[in-house]
Amino acid sequence: MGDLLQKTLASIGELDAAAMSRAQARQNSLAKPAGSLGVLEELSIRLAGIRRGWEKGLEEKVIIVMAGDHGAVEEGVTAYPQEVTQQMLANFVRGGAAINVLARHAGARVVVVDMGTAAQESIEGVLNFKVRQGTGNIARGPAMTREEATAAIEAGIKIAQEEIEKGAQVVGTGDMGIGNTTPSSAILAAFSSLPPEKFVGRGTGVDETGWRRKVGAIYKALEVNAPDPRDPLDVLSKVGGLEIAGIAGCILGAAARRVPAVIDGFISTAGALIAARLQPRAKEFMIASHLSAEPGHRFMLELLGLEPVLRMNLRLGEGTGAALVMPLLDAALKILNEMATFASAGVSEKIER
Amino acid sequence: MGDLLQKTLASIGELDAAAMSRAQARQNSLAKPAGSLGVLEELSIRLAGIRRGWEKGLEEKVIIVMAGDHGAVEEGVTAYPQEVTQQMLANFVRGGAAINVLARHAGARVVVVDMGTAAQESIEGVLNFKVRQGTGNIARGPAMTREEATAAIEAGIKIAQEEIEKGAQVVGTGDMGIGNTTPSSAILAAFSSLPPEKFVGRGTGVDETGWRRKVGAIYKALEVNAPDPRDPLDVLSKVGGLEIAGIAGCILGAAARRVPAVIDGFISTAGALIAARLQPRAKEFMIASHLSAEPGHRFMLELLGLEPVLRMNLRLGEGTGAALVMPLLDAALKILNEMATFASAGVSEKIER
Repeated sequence: MGDLLQKTLASIGELDAAAMSRAQARQNSLAKPAGSLGVLEELSIRLAGIRRGWEKGLEEKVIIVMAGDHGAVEEGVTAYPQEVTQQMLANFVRGGAAINVLARHAGARVVVVDMGTAAQESIEGVLNFKVRQGTGNIARGPAMTREEATAAIEAGIKIAQEEIEKGAQVVGTGDMGIGNTTPSSAILAAFSSLPPEKFVGRGTGVDETGWRRKVGAIYKALEVNAPDPRDPLDVLSKVGGLEIAGIAGCILGAAARRVPAVIDGFISTAGALIAARLQPRAKEFMIASHLSAEPGHRFMLELLGLEPVLRMNLRLGEGTGAALVMPLLDAALKILNEMATFASAGVSEKIER
Repeated sequence: MGDLLQKTLASIGELDAAAMSRAQARQNSLAKPAGSLGVLEELSIRLAGIRRGWEKGLEEKVIIVMAGDHGAVEEGVTAYPQEVTQQMLANFVRGGAAINVLARHAGARVVVVDMGTAAQESIEGVLNFKVRQGTGNIARGPAMTREEATAAIEAGIKIAQEEIEKGAQVVGTGDMGIGNTTPSSAILAAFSSLPPEKFVGRGTGVDETGWRRKVGAIYKALEVNAPDPRDPLDVLSKVGGLEIAGIAGCILGAAARRVPAVIDGFISTAGALIAARLQPRAKEFMIASHLSAEPGHRFMLELLGLEPVLRMNLRLGEGTGAALVMPLLDAALKILNEMATFASAGVSEKIER
């Protein structure tokens, strides 16, 4: 395990219990029935625990979109050709993708990172952290070496922490990589006892035959590689992906700096699983933005013990769910900061009968 | 039935099917797997149907908070004293309530209307459309006369349409009125065959004894008044509320002008039920913002055939759920307006195997 990774894991702390009870007490003093803002109140309290208070807003937002390619596409598991990864990176840089639209709407910057696309050429405006040109085909061997997995996580840590040093107060994760629901599903299978056919989805829309090939590829990946679920770097390197490693790194890097990490959908949550297995305390710094239409996602969230904020049947990735949730985090903090209390508003409290 | 009400019901049209198919075709042309933005795509298509297009944004937003008091509070069905209605109106005007915070966050103006509080004095900044000083106790007689119910609905129509004339492109509904989950529950009971104990909730937090009194009061309201479910004005006047009538009016007024009506929680949806029984076409112009923690809410939404956008365990009212959803409507329209297509972005389309 690399030095930066080890240092980062060690420096991830716990939620600030005192700040959380102050936030809870403040919620109860505000002129509304206790608990009546539901998830918004819970988010405000967790943000207070992560950030040791609630006075500062989350004005500076960043969404880090990690890209990588996947050797498993040669198994015929995808609905789109691999070249789409690169084409979409160009689209991200030009600002025309869904994540650009939704990030602008949320007031978030988009940082696009090539963690390991298959392309030779690089695209201006895309950060180049390419660890290798796509993973190996997991149905036939490991995705990458353990050293490559560590390097990719450490790149994610660095990228997130550089953004935080530049001012980011919240980090959202996103992904791009044709074929990446296959390794994400393999990661879920490795960490759970669920048979793949119970949760493997259609990804971007593969047909029935493609779906069967996908399930088969995941079974083969588990058989050929025998990933050890007690060793998250083993799982990541054998059946994971480079963008998934980068996402895990972003989450760990943010958690180490007490910055909330807003997890997008299925692929990002695969990264979150790796991060949480490396350091269980990292979970407390994660906010699960939404429940994806990808059927395996709810099992991942259950493994993490996270409740998704939105259930909007999204299945796009790119960080789109993270972008949609960010304004709700702002709203949660504004409730704590801007609402009048029963006392200040002169509103009568509950009747004690 | 009043002239304005009849004219309004008659002028509510249908969704623009041509605009909806153009919106669907555009969604399918955008550089993302078809349907992958889930509820966001559905919202964009419905908004196109309501507004006959998607080119115009929803910059001008208004949330109309309708207030009223309830004679049924004398049955001991509430957790807070009746004076809180008036105290909260003052809080709304000063900008310190949850709805003020969340409306500011959404870029929406808040319009506060006294439809029938028990107070004698009026508050500066609150629109005075008081039809009467609170309803009668529905456990002992009708809430109001049929004429009063009509007048309150017509006030709601006028208020919404004045806001639309001033520029509002989307109208959110909100409520304030201690005791108003009781008439809202009675409306649900009148329109369904559900026994009240199956769905009556704790409102703002009444205790077990209060809950039993509340269920009892609803049974008495149905028995004493025998509201006719085929006659929505009968239901509204016998077991409803003045703010509920005002909300029904706002929804109808918006629908008649092809402006989306964003429905808040349990009380607003009781108003939506009245509106939809008066004119079933009005349903198409409603957006159900969220699923409330109040247990009866899901039955109301089922009766309306509406899917809530958010499930955040809110139970505050005031229009808070409507305010939280408005930025998601903006996001839905921006997707249609700002995303690149497969063609314009040079992204390869799905593989036909």
